Amino acid sequence: MNGYLIKTHLICLLSDFSFKDYFVAAMKGSIYRENPSAMIVDITHDIPKYNILKGALVLRNVYRSFPDGTIFVAVVDPGVGSSRQPLIMRAGNHFFVGPDNGLLSLVLLEHSRADLFSIDIAALSPTISSTFHGRDIFAPIAAKLSMGIMPESLGSPFSDPVKLSFPRPKLYKNSILGKALCCDSFGNIQTNISARLLEGKNIKRVLFGGYCAFGISSCYEDGKDLDFTVLIDSSGFLEIASYKGSAAAKLENICDVDDLEIILEV
Amino acid sequence: MNGYLIKTHLICLLSDFSFKDYFVAAMKGSIYRENPSAMIVDITHDIPKYNILKGALVLRNVYRSFPDGTIFVAVVDPGVGSSRQPLIMRAGNHFFVGPDNGLLSLVLLEHSRADLFSIDIAALSPTISSTFHGRDIFAPIAAKLSMGIMPESLGSPFSDPVKLSFPRPKLYKNSILGKALCCDSFGNIQTNISARLLEGKNIKRVLFGGYCAFGISSCYEDGKDLDFTVLIDSSGFLEIASYKGSAAAKLENICDVDDLEIILEV
Amino acid sequence: MNGYLIKTHLICLLSDFSFKDYFVAAMKGSIYRENPSAMIVDITHDIPKYNILKGALVLRNVYRSFPDGTIFVAVVDPGVGSSRQPLIMRAGNHFFVGPDNGLLSLVLLEHSRADLFSIDIAALSPTISSTFHGRDIFAPIAAKLSMGIMPESLGSPFSDPVKLSFPRPKLYKNSILGKALCCDSFGNIQTNISARLLEGKNIKRVLFGGYCAFGISSCYEDGKDLDFTVLIDSSGFLEIASYKGSAAAKLENICDVDDLEIILEV
Repeated sequence: MNGYLIKTHLICLLSDFSFKDYFVAAMKGSIYRENPSAMIVDITHDIPKYNILKGALVLRNVYRSFPDGTIFVAVVDPGVGSSRQPLIMRAGNHFFVGPDNGLLSLVLLEHSRADLFSIDIAALSPTISSTFHGRDIFAPIAAKLSMGIMPESLGSPFSDPVKLSFPRPKLYKNSILGKALCCDSFGNIQTNISARLLEGKNIKRVLFGGYCAFGISSCYEDGKDLDFTVLIDSSGFLEIASYKGSAAAKLENICDVDDLEIILEV
Repeated sequence: MNGYLIKTHLICLLSDFSFKDYFVAAMKGSIYRENPSAMIVDITHDIPKYNILKGALVLRNVYRSFPDGTIFVAVVDPGVGSSRQPLIMRAGNHFFVGPDNGLLSLVLLEHSRADLFSIDIAALSPTISSTFHGRDIFAPIAAKLSMGIMPESLGSPFSDPVKLSFPRPKLYKNSILGKALCCDSFGNIQTNISARLLEGKNIKRVLFGGYCAFGISSCYEDGKDLDFTVLIDSSGFLEIASYKGSAAAKLENICDVDDLEIILEV
Repeated sequence: MNGYLIKTHLICLLSDFSFKDYFVAAMKGSIYRENPSAMIVDITHDIPKYNILKGALVLRNVYRSFPDGTIFVAVVDPGVGSSRQPLIMRAGNHFFVGPDNGLLSLVLLEHSRADLFSIDIAALSPTISSTFHGRDIFAPIAAKLSMGIMPESLGSPFSDPVKLSFPRPKLYKNSILGKALCCDSFGNIQTNISARLLEGKNIKRVLFGGYCAFGISSCYEDGKDLDFTVLIDSSGFLEIASYKGSAAAKLENICDVDDLEIILEV
């Protein structure tokens, strides 16, 4: 029997590298050099350049879709080569590898008992560039994790990671005040109001950008004859959508979508 | 021995999700949760948003390149969560999974003996969102098919699927009248005239958008000194191309490429 | 035991096909039809259309990141179907498959003892299109190589391949004169000056586009308060960068980045 029967875990990659250059492939090459039978999945490499919040949101929205043991490598890292630490995080049944700049902090918010480790560079190749830790540190570390090496062997316990200042919704007696967080490629606008927050509440009206929606729809087609629909998106947050169109594009002329506030009357 | 030796089939994904968000990755996570040794291939996720015809054309152009048993998951699905049915189609030696909105209908056109099944939602996870059936229905169904579960066990026979109104070429005594269907990223314009239709015919002139080409070229370089070349594309249809340039961009100023008609004098 | 234990090598794909169409997937289908357990990695498919130099640079920048035995299929091929030869190249411990148009020539520059083979079309499927050799020739050849078939069995020795005219830096007594080669998606500008050329040299000033940088930085953040930073990129060449910004966009208004010259005072 042979190496094909070694248990491997999935390795998922997320970055702002785009697919136009060789960067993503170089990370995969690094992984395969450590673990020739690695299974690699791209989350996305189209995080807007240097946008740590967007990277953190996408990571939070997707990680629960993957099996236990999956390893996520997240690289949105303008500080590469500076003094910021490279981290491993074990949160729930998943592993996360990336820079200590807040990118992992929205997942961390959901796991009060997560373990963090500062990666021990000495265990890696002697030639680490100062411009591409995705290839030279994060990818090989993920490969080692995928082969069953424990984070405890790859770094030292780490506390006090950088946390993103993440706007939380405000709860009032008869209303909830939320904020737009990001748009997806359909122009659906994700807010910071979770479905969990709305459990047991009767939503009467939803106000945003001068518009008013009555209640929360159950699918996009419900908004067929309306400018906008408000519904719970597939990661469990309130979103503003527009049937077969882009809610973000429609609102763009009216207000700054990045600063959009949403008021729910309950 | 273990699960690694179970026979798996390829699962191919096509959607209008783009790669900017977490949607494609969430589908893959769903697949791996059902079948940890699945082999997944992306066809494209850049189908223009909600463009069912373009999705159907790409699917028809590519599926024969894959081995027998391959499973195609196609999701261009503005009606997600509404009453439209989720389908499995067995056509020739391939399987197709997607919404009943015409997306599978161009492949169906080529298989008069295809079997259709309406997916039985009850066999799936109890928590199905109404905004993301790609992740919650189509991906897990594909994973089950990849492990050898028969479509008969996953749904009920279905008839009368939605069919796209697909323009067919018109045949006259001395000419064939066709239409542009779509452009690829090179700006090559694919038409609805198949190579099969031209078998045994002597093409004298090809007229389109005020231009005239004499005969059909065998490769792009044949049109090196010409505005346009007309040739048979790699999926077996007549296309209009421009050597090292974009035929679509060149014609754009002259006519509406979407309505472009092509006349072949035979 | 079964086919899963056959030793396979990675197959990496690079092209100007984009991911918008079915072309990349059709190549993968061709590979899986030959070798159902192939492992395929996308380098990039966003090489600017017909830009052979950019394709050759990306290939050169990435191939060393992959394990020995990896097979690279490179397709930027405006001459498809014409008289240009399809090639296999064995260089160092890697294999390369692609058209004889210069695309492989920058890797070849680094391997004086590389072997070249002109692919024998007769060994392939009888139906080869004249518009898509990626699917009909290069992909199946790569699949055969991945199963351990030797290039000697797939073609005939070939000499005198097309070489790109690649600008080399000029060395003067107190200076080095280099040139910008390409930009990455971050707007970092890669030059033709290799780190190796600078070994043992003391770089005083770097002049480009009317700007002057003092010495070479070790990471992007070193340029936090500057317009530009000059550093050694992750593939071992001098690059001009701008912290959390695009050096190419900043220079665009001043000069033609494609013709940008860089002077190093040593």
